[in-house]
Amino acid sequence: MSTDGEPTKAGAAGYRVAEGCTLRPREGVLVLSDIEIANAAAMDRITDVGRDRLGIPEEHLVPYGHHKAKVDLRYLATLEDRPLGKLVLMTAISPTPAGEGKTTTTVGLTDALQGLGHRSMACLREPSMGPVFGMKGGAAGGGYAQVVPMTDINLHFTGDFAAIAAAHNLLSALIDNHVHHGNELEIDVRSVTWKRVIDLNDRALRDLVVGLGGIGNGYPRQDGFDIVVASELMAIFCLTESWADLKRRIGDIVVGYTRSKAPVTARDLGAHGAMTVLLRDALAPNLVQTLEHAPAFVHGGPFANIAHGCSSVVATRAALRLADYVVTEAGFGADLGAEKFVDIKCRKSGLRPDAAVVVATVRALKYHGGVDVPELATEDLDALELGMANLRRHLHNIREVYGVPCVVAVNRFPTDTDAEVARVVELCAAEGVRAFPARHFAEGGVGAEDLAKGVLELLEEPSPHEFGFTYDDDLSLTAKVEAVAARLYGAREVTWDGKARRRLERIEADGYGALPVCIAKTQYSFSTDATLRGAPSGHELHVREVRLSAGAGFVVMVCGDVMTMPGLPRRPASDHIDLADDGTILGLS
Amino acid sequence: MSTDGEPTKAGAAGYRVAEGCTLRPREGVLVLSDIEIANAAAMDRITDVGRDRLGIPEEHLVPYGHHKAKVDLRYLATLEDRPLGKLVLMTAISPTPAGEGKTTTTVGLTDALQGLGHRSMACLREPSMGPVFGMKGGAAGGGYAQVVPMTDINLHFTGDFAAIAAAHNLLSALIDNHVHHGNELEIDVRSVTWKRVIDLNDRALRDLVVGLGGIGNGYPRQDGFDIVVASELMAIFCLTESWADLKRRIGDIVVGYTRSKAPVTARDLGAHGAMTVLLRDALAPNLVQTLEHAPAFVHGGPFANIAHGCSSVVATRAALRLADYVVTEAGFGADLGAEKFVDIKCRKSGLRPDAAVVVATVRALKYHGGVDVPELATEDLDALELGMANLRRHLHNIREVYGVPCVVAVNRFPTDTDAEVARVVELCAAEGVRAFPARHFAEGGVGAEDLAKGVLELLEEPSPHEFGFTYDDDLSLTAKVEAVAARLYGAREVTWDGKARRRLERIEADGYGALPVCIAKTQYSFSTDATLRGAPSGHELHVREVRLSAGAGFVVMVCGDVMTMPGLPRRPASDHIDLADDGTILGLS
Repeated sequence: MSTDGEPTKAGAAGYRVAEGCTLRPREGVLVLSDIEIANAAAMDRITDVGRDRLGIPEEHLVPYGHHKAKVDLRYLATLEDRPLGKLVLMTAISPTPAGEGKTTTTVGLTDALQGLGHRSMACLREPSMGPVFGMKGGAAGGGYAQVVPMTDINLHFTGDFAAIAAAHNLLSALIDNHVHHGNELEIDVRSVTWKRVIDLNDRALRDLVVGLGGIGNGYPRQDGFDIVVASELMAIFCLTESWADLKRRIGDIVVGYTRSKAPVTARDLGAHGAMTVLLRDALAPNLVQTLEHAPAFVHGGPFANIAHGCSSVVATRAALRLADYVVTEAGFGADLGAEKFVDIKCRKSGLRPDAAVVVATVRALKYHGGVDVPELATEDLDALELGMANLRRHLHNIREVYGVPCVVAVNRFPTDTDAEVARVVELCAAEGVRAFPARHFAEGGVGAEDLAKGVLELLEEPSPHEFGFTYDDDLSLTAKVEAVAARLYGAREVTWDGKARRRLERIEADGYGALPVCIAKTQYSFSTDATLRGAPSGHELHVREVRLSAGAGFVVMVCGDVMTMPGLPRRPASDHIDLADDGTILGLS
Repeated sequence: MSTDGEPTKAGAAGYRVAEGCTLRPREGVLVLSDIEIANAAAMDRITDVGRDRLGIPEEHLVPYGHHKAKVDLRYLATLEDRPLGKLVLMTAISPTPAGEGKTTTTVGLTDALQGLGHRSMACLREPSMGPVFGMKGGAAGGGYAQVVPMTDINLHFTGDFAAIAAAHNLLSALIDNHVHHGNELEIDVRSVTWKRVIDLNDRALRDLVVGLGGIGNGYPRQDGFDIVVASELMAIFCLTESWADLKRRIGDIVVGYTRSKAPVTARDLGAHGAMTVLLRDALAPNLVQTLEHAPAFVHGGPFANIAHGCSSVVATRAALRLADYVVTEAGFGADLGAEKFVDIKCRKSGLRPDAAVVVATVRALKYHGGVDVPELATEDLDALELGMANLRRHLHNIREVYGVPCVVAVNRFPTDTDAEVARVVELCAAEGVRAFPARHFAEGGVGAEDLAKGVLELLEEPSPHEFGFTYDDDLSLTAKVEAVAARLYGAREVTWDGKARRRLERIEADGYGALPVCIAKTQYSFSTDATLRGAPSGHELHVREVRLSAGAGFVVMVCGDVMTMPGLPRRPASDHIDLADDGTILGLS
């Protein structure tokens, strides 16, 4: 993907190709696009990947074509007594327009671990289809570190998002239907917070009035569509453990309030059973492979701002029973994705990361040091040193707050100078953290071999830290936000909109005070100002809005603008996406 | 399904079970629900069904789980030189609340043909998910004449409808996006006819205003959602022959008009390539099996009023190359479904039915003879005779207008008396048509053995008729409607709303006059008045609205109210649909 780095010149000139990787650059063409690489991939049958790499008998794989499969949940339940593998969390510095390459590094590290003879596995989020036709493109890694089949994964895949959308929208329809047929529950339609969803970028649906056209069409009210990844149902899906747990959580969803301000749940509307039926098959994790045939679960994909931004607990837990090393990615930088991985996903599931890898690039560090995009190709050791402040704070948070041992992956770009890369390694060493340059984008797994060895070494050492959460359950919601702001963001204080404060009080009064918080703020800065690069301190964290996700089990603190329905650009990517007469998909990136 | 009849008493007492059918009624329980029967079915692996029943090598089946598969389009292209099997069209008298059982009879006949040693196959429409949670329930046959896996087929199945919805809504988003970014094409937003779609019953989405909330959200305009089966894209999907043809037809879709009244197409918006990519996998037909392991394609499902109501051409053509006898169902009664099968699907594809089966029930004939639902269980030979007028006109249309030889299937209900059934057979004989009582609902394939033998006999005889269309391409659109009204409906004249007339003129001026017409009227009567049972004559066919489906290639004549987005009832079926902790789906009907 465009933000995931490019092949190194060395790689492009004399491609070293990982063993087991059947790809070669086309003659005379030095740089292939992601889709060219992916379309040329010689994939193993997924039943072979499951059997040979993970020991899953064929009858427990539910195939979706020859290269995707779901692993039967009933089979996974039989593995409960197996020891768990080591869990490696892939996180990153604060994202920049320069690109970091977290998914790519997750895939590269998994391939490298496999190349070293280990049973390894990646756990990734499913890409949203909307951005594929918009600006961002897909999200299945890039270069020679991809999961395949790339076009399938980026489009309908195994139908999980469609299932989540159907279940979400069934609840929406049941709300309006209930009101239309007499409103027994006395729902105050002005208070309905459960919107509708679609897996497209469509700004026209952000804000609308439904129920027009007269009596037969129900009561008009203001409503809106979010993109599917923003659905609370997506977060529930990714935090749940079983069908029974899924149904319970769905029942707990608060869709709005009665005229006397009591919460109305999906259970009150009798919607939870049918919604769970719609998600039955989707809940089984999706097995695919990397270009080097390492197994990967790609399952679930909640936003990393209004939700927790991690792939499913079901997939992570299954992977830990099937493989010795599991690499999983959290969204955005370590202040958002890793924090939520720890404080939401780990807290709720009991999962614990054994180590973390923090992805950084020379370009991104220079950007954090004040260099703007057009100048990023020029060597600048001073800016690099300044930008280290960002990485340094993330390292501190991961080790001292979450208590997780970590290494740094320096994802190399062609414009990086050797001096710059050496300086990053040196500066990390000064922090007591090993950093490993990696060339998996251009070289596949062998390009991340040093990184893999570093991770294995780290996993062998006794951890000097003790795993912990940023805050305890029994703090008030306010104190929880304050803990995150002070301990992780370097903020001076937390301030509140009056409306947010009142909503918070209502939520605590309704009995949701023991939930963890999920902070939605810009991913580009430790502050709420996207332009403050590096490691700003002493700023104010202003909570503009508070939202309850009672089914997922967290309270969202919205700090700044959060877009839950993207738009399309003037020239959307769909302009160039096409199907050749022989069925080849062209132009997807 | 509830409208598809019930087991006979004889059947329930001493169930005869078809050979190859592994089901038995539970002890002490005489009548099982459809889902109980379906959940208990011992299905063959779909790869075995494909290989053993149709000779498809496993590598050309794209599995979706172990019991559903798509047949690779590239493999189907290699079968082009094979001779075609015989095509049997399943149609019916005008539907009544008493239930006829067309899908059930399609399955029963297919099973019976297989039981007699023939290579037979069914081609059915995919059910829409919306009604499953509403009132109607699913649509995969009923009793011992079902296609399975029933719950899969009725819910997400292989994702075809989700893919059609995504492609449809991408075009919708691109329209508003184009207008938002400057409206180069000068689209008149008031003239946009391309709405949005969702596969749910949701009345609140029928009529809405999108684009509210300020500049960033685009231009407000009136819009609405249809259910997916009402999408023109669904009709295109079912009439297309190949990926290239699909892209061409999608490009031809007219989404609205410019300010100077020129049509704006999906091609003008650059949407056709990406939309075709979204439908690439969906276009391959879905293979499933009957309870007796006969192969069935379940593929595509357009409305039978504003569209042509038949499963896909791709599936029918593939089935005719793979099997010796193909039974396919058209929507509603023979005045709507069969007419469109002939005048739209056959006209465009070159396919020709070798025979037709007209499904009737004693109950439905009595209803057409004036008996109301509560009295249908009482023997009434006079009403039966009166109601024969409805069947008689359908038989006339099928034989004399379409020129297709036919037999009648009398789908038996427990309340039918032997005298009543004998009278139907006798009245049909007076028309020169053989009628065969059938008990496939209660007995599976053996219950339709007589019917199968009758169809085989009919297929051996030289046809006294010559296949023909109701009208020629070169008639004006007006004359085409008049031909259908006069020749099939017994109408005296066709009248027009002024607006409809002006729209018709515009459509002809734009060069679409050579297209066939698709008449949308009530399915319950030959007239446009749903309460006129039997065979009304001398009525007026009033065209209220005219819609262009330029991609599908027909012009829709809307006569009366056509609902393209159903609502949910006060107590929707979703109330009772639930997932047991072990993953069993309950309450689907």
